[in-house]
Amino acid sequence: MKIYGDSMLGSLDLPGDLKHLRIDECIALAAEMREVLIKTVAQNGGHLASNLGTVELSIAVHRAFDSPNDKIIWDVGHQSYNHKLLTGRYKSFDTLRQKGGISGFCRPSESVHDAFISGHSSTSVSAALGYACAMKLTGSKNYAVAILGDGAATGGEFFEGLNNAGKSDANIIVIINHNEMSISKNVGGLAKYLATLRTKQKYIKTKGRVEKLLDSTPLVGSPLKNTIKASKNAIKNIVLRNSAPTLFEDLGFSFVGPVDGHSLSELDYALAAAKSIGGPVIVHVNTVKGKGYAPAEHNPGGYHGVGAFDLETGNPDAVSSDSFSYIFGDTLVRLAAKNNKICAITAAMKYGTGLDRFARKYPKRFYDVGIAEQHAVTFAGGLAAAGMIPVFAVYSSFLQRGFDQIIHDLAITNSHTVIGIDRAGLVGEDGETHQGIFDVSFLSSVPNVKIYSPSSYEELRKCTERAVNNDTGVVCVRYPKGKDISEYDKSYVSESFAHIKNGSDILIVTYGRLFNEVYKAYKMLSDDDLMTDVLKLVQIHPIKSQVISIVSSYKKVYFFEEGIINGSVGQQLSSVCRNVEVFAINDFVSQASVYESLESLGLSYNEIYKKIKADFNENKA
Amino acid sequence: MKIYGDSMLGSLDLPGDLKHLRIDECIALAAEMREVLIKTVAQNGGHLASNLGTVELSIAVHRAFDSPNDKIIWDVGHQSYNHKLLTGRYKSFDTLRQKGGISGFCRPSESVHDAFISGHSSTSVSAALGYACAMKLTGSKNYAVAILGDGAATGGEFFEGLNNAGKSDANIIVIINHNEMSISKNVGGLAKYLATLRTKQKYIKTKGRVEKLLDSTPLVGSPLKNTIKASKNAIKNIVLRNSAPTLFEDLGFSFVGPVDGHSLSELDYALAAAKSIGGPVIVHVNTVKGKGYAPAEHNPGGYHGVGAFDLETGNPDAVSSDSFSYIFGDTLVRLAAKNNKICAITAAMKYGTGLDRFARKYPKRFYDVGIAEQHAVTFAGGLAAAGMIPVFAVYSSFLQRGFDQIIHDLAITNSHTVIGIDRAGLVGEDGETHQGIFDVSFLSSVPNVKIYSPSSYEELRKCTERAVNNDTGVVCVRYPKGKDISEYDKSYVSESFAHIKNGSDILIVTYGRLFNEVYKAYKMLSDDDLMTDVLKLVQIHPIKSQVISIVSSYKKVYFFEEGIINGSVGQQLSSVCRNVEVFAINDFVSQASVYESLESLGLSYNEIYKKIKADFNENKA
Repeated sequence: MKIYGDSMLGSLDLPGDLKHLRIDECIALAAEMREVLIKTVAQNGGHLASNLGTVELSIAVHRAFDSPNDKIIWDVGHQSYNHKLLTGRYKSFDTLRQKGGISGFCRPSESVHDAFISGHSSTSVSAALGYACAMKLTGSKNYAVAILGDGAATGGEFFEGLNNAGKSDANIIVIINHNEMSISKNVGGLAKYLATLRTKQKYIKTKGRVEKLLDSTPLVGSPLKNTIKASKNAIKNIVLRNSAPTLFEDLGFSFVGPVDGHSLSELDYALAAAKSIGGPVIVHVNTVKGKGYAPAEHNPGGYHGVGAFDLETGNPDAVSSDSFSYIFGDTLVRLAAKNNKICAITAAMKYGTGLDRFARKYPKRFYDVGIAEQHAVTFAGGLAAAGMIPVFAVYSSFLQRGFDQIIHDLAITNSHTVIGIDRAGLVGEDGETHQGIFDVSFLSSVPNVKIYSPSSYEELRKCTERAVNNDTGVVCVRYPKGKDISEYDKSYVSESFAHIKNGSDILIVTYGRLFNEVYKAYKMLSDDDLMTDVLKLVQIHPIKSQVISIVSSYKKVYFFEEGIINGSVGQQLSSVCRNVEVFAINDFVSQASVYESLESLGLSYNEIYKKIKADFNENKA
Repeated sequence: MKIYGDSMLGSLDLPGDLKHLRIDECIALAAEMREVLIKTVAQNGGHLASNLGTVELSIAVHRAFDSPNDKIIWDVGHQSYNHKLLTGRYKSFDTLRQKGGISGFCRPSESVHDAFISGHSSTSVSAALGYACAMKLTGSKNYAVAILGDGAATGGEFFEGLNNAGKSDANIIVIINHNEMSISKNVGGLAKYLATLRTKQKYIKTKGRVEKLLDSTPLVGSPLKNTIKASKNAIKNIVLRNSAPTLFEDLGFSFVGPVDGHSLSELDYALAAAKSIGGPVIVHVNTVKGKGYAPAEHNPGGYHGVGAFDLETGNPDAVSSDSFSYIFGDTLVRLAAKNNKICAITAAMKYGTGLDRFARKYPKRFYDVGIAEQHAVTFAGGLAAAGMIPVFAVYSSFLQRGFDQIIHDLAITNSHTVIGIDRAGLVGEDGETHQGIFDVSFLSSVPNVKIYSPSSYEELRKCTERAVNNDTGVVCVRYPKGKDISEYDKSYVSESFAHIKNGSDILIVTYGRLFNEVYKAYKMLSDDDLMTDVLKLVQIHPIKSQVISIVSSYKKVYFFEEGIINGSVGQQLSSVCRNVEVFAINDFVSQASVYESLESLGLSYNEIYKKIKADFNENKA
């Protein structure tokens, strides 16, 4: 259902027509875009404040550059809604984040204007440099543009990209979107540094030369192309002051900024300047998160349940008290009260991981390291080596960034560290970049790692307590996004496994959230007089010898798993127990609700019921 | 066998006695250490030039700090030989890199003075910050010290660590060892920046204050402690000049340097200054790689077959023409001649991966990105998106750093990129941090990834050509360290699989280098009239349906695999073929020769032969 009337967005030929608009027309367009953003996010969920903050920037980028010949790469991509509205996706924008609809991130499969996939942070400079180097090789004069927030600038890959781009002579323009709201005290030295740049006088600096960024010439009505040509000379002639080089200039970039990211004329001018300089250029843009919608602007954290915003990832973060994340954070606060060695670490997800209460109660033992999962893991290793008990709470798909460090800095030395793996399993609307379907495989390949996968709040509490207080080595506790929907008999709560015995020779095995689906299917089968036994694993790795004994004693075993099949627990078990059939995930999973995904993957209670019932009917079970 | 006579190293109580030595005694000790380094590395192999360059620095660090109360963390650890000589390991130093002997990297299990494990690059600041934060929490006044080369400073995790350390008020001292030889033109903007610092006048800078680093007071004979006390005031009183802030100061550090890393008195002074400042401090030290041994100093790349040195990882890199690395590089040069879309990428391993000839022949299409595997993968994705064919050659254990990017930036979009995985499987003397035993597991969990594991040069050529010219998606070609030792009939060469059929109902399956072991065992069994069939896989993932058919047709199948068991090809296969028994690796593998490791893992031809023969004898086979 399209909920907006006729409009500039509906009638213009975008993005091409943008270049012909007067500034006042752009301002009207921006107002219309804000209206669409607010209505759509109110309906479909998603990122509001970060997109409200980048309306003018998105318009200016598409005025200055010629997508898809110039390549526009939005880091993380949660702030790409405006870009989508401006590149042919306005009419389907009401399907945002829905099954089969517009992605909440950039997807090359969705549009030729999405030059690179996004979802994880700090990749845009590296990807843009790939494009820029290819352009050089092929003699193209086009530009590659990376746009990232100051939060994404805390990730190590950003620095790697910067370090390589800075020494290149490729036409890469890196726009750092500095929004006041996303800076916390915790994001590091670079954040403080960017904040100092924010307040400096506007300037353009190429190597050895400092030039004034002209007060925005009124561009209303004037042909932009001529202005760009004129500006090149203007820029080169006016020296403002002999400022100290920025950190970015130290790394080989020319520097433009700071620019008012809500002034279209200033943005037009700055981007024209950046294009005219050539080679690697940084443009520092100041924006206000939530801009243009008073409640969101004044309190981007509080508007319409969107919650606090973590760093640049921009996720709405204030988790409900009825969520696994909250229970994990709550348990940690409780444990930390009794043991002052417990430290908590987050990679820019203080709210999302439910660690905000820990941060308030034990600020000295709380570390928000920015979007820096590699550092987070090694840092935990350092704390552990010094006798502390570090707990790193992180989303499953982001933990992929710390894989090498888990092996190298924790597991080889069997360092006692706890990893709380949030958003484990399917995550729903964020789609393929955010699914937590790899952690079990990659973690169970590493020696000295133990993994719990609780299926209820009570189990999460027990497993976390055990991981922190009793276990040794690297202990992972993984739990799903959202809330406990378990309806099963709580006598099955365990830190190890629970076995429902009815004397059947058919066993259904599973773990984690999927136990709820299996339990429902088991009940339905039971109502049909089809008797099965059920085994719920809680410690899923290493696989306990008792589990192998139990599984081996059955004629037929079904293993249902909400994770990638290769390296899965089911596959490991089926390698030693020859009666096991594994049902897991064998491809990337697109956006949809979690239940829609479970259905299409054959992992919903309904699909599990149908599968086993059919086998009974065919005497296969 | 101990090859050195009585000495200071043999008679002093180290590291404690270091603090009582006069500078002239330290100089004599340094000379003795260089002698030990040269003799030991000549005998056992390892890193020579990087250790020759850090003799004085190592002495000075252990004079200034109080290990193990102060925590000394050597990044990568290949330059830790001097540290080992100074901390109780002189008498066993002749076992360097041998089975059961002294590690070529830092190992907490080896000495309380090895404060953190090392082997992979750019982790030292993160680990040291963990220690420093724990010290703060426990009220300790000790120091955490990270020492890294400018090469390690190109890794993103270094930046993440720096960004977090800079905003802390922890007592962390980061010593950047800038050695002229390791800087290549290719390592990025930071390298250029460090080179400019190198030539600046020495100074100490705390926030808002610039002070002269005194010309080395002659410390010979004077009690060091008094000097340190005096220096604190001296430093605070002498302002040299109003220099621009360094990049490190922008990030929140105080800055000391540049310091002559071969002047013990200057080092003593600078480290005392660093200690007195408090909070996060950077010390910039200039050293000369290979210092003190003329041939190595003048040509660190050419001395005694140690070969050229890549960046900070410091591996001797000029690979023999009789090596898989060379053949891979050679094949790529040949393919690139016919297709100008082929680009080659290395993460600071131009020589080690055999890409040096590509770099010379096609410099515009060659990218050395520094020790930046995350960037390398995403950058490859950018090149591929722009229509190029990027080939990233990387050691297996270092590719762990790019896991998330392989999933996120390559596989989801099914981007055609080729990854040459060098040092796949066991690597021998470098030990547990460098074993290439995880790549098959983590890569085969990712959809849209294909993996070849050739066992001979000829197969490597074929697979590489196919990966580059014919395949789509993410294609990995993995090959072992060292040379082709295959003695088997070359009619078995394939890009898919080869099946040796003798009509047996017993099948031995393997892939890669291990095929040589299996083939020898097969021949020995055959000589004993024990007939087996053999299946050599070359495309190991996805597993071909023909392979499943063949394997299923046997009564008993042995799968031998030089990789970690969970997620292995054998485990995947045994999950669908119930007749397969898998023999793989289930723990970290310590340093030893490759053959020694294969023996102890039950994967040598001898062990394979014994296992199967015993089964024949017990009628199990």
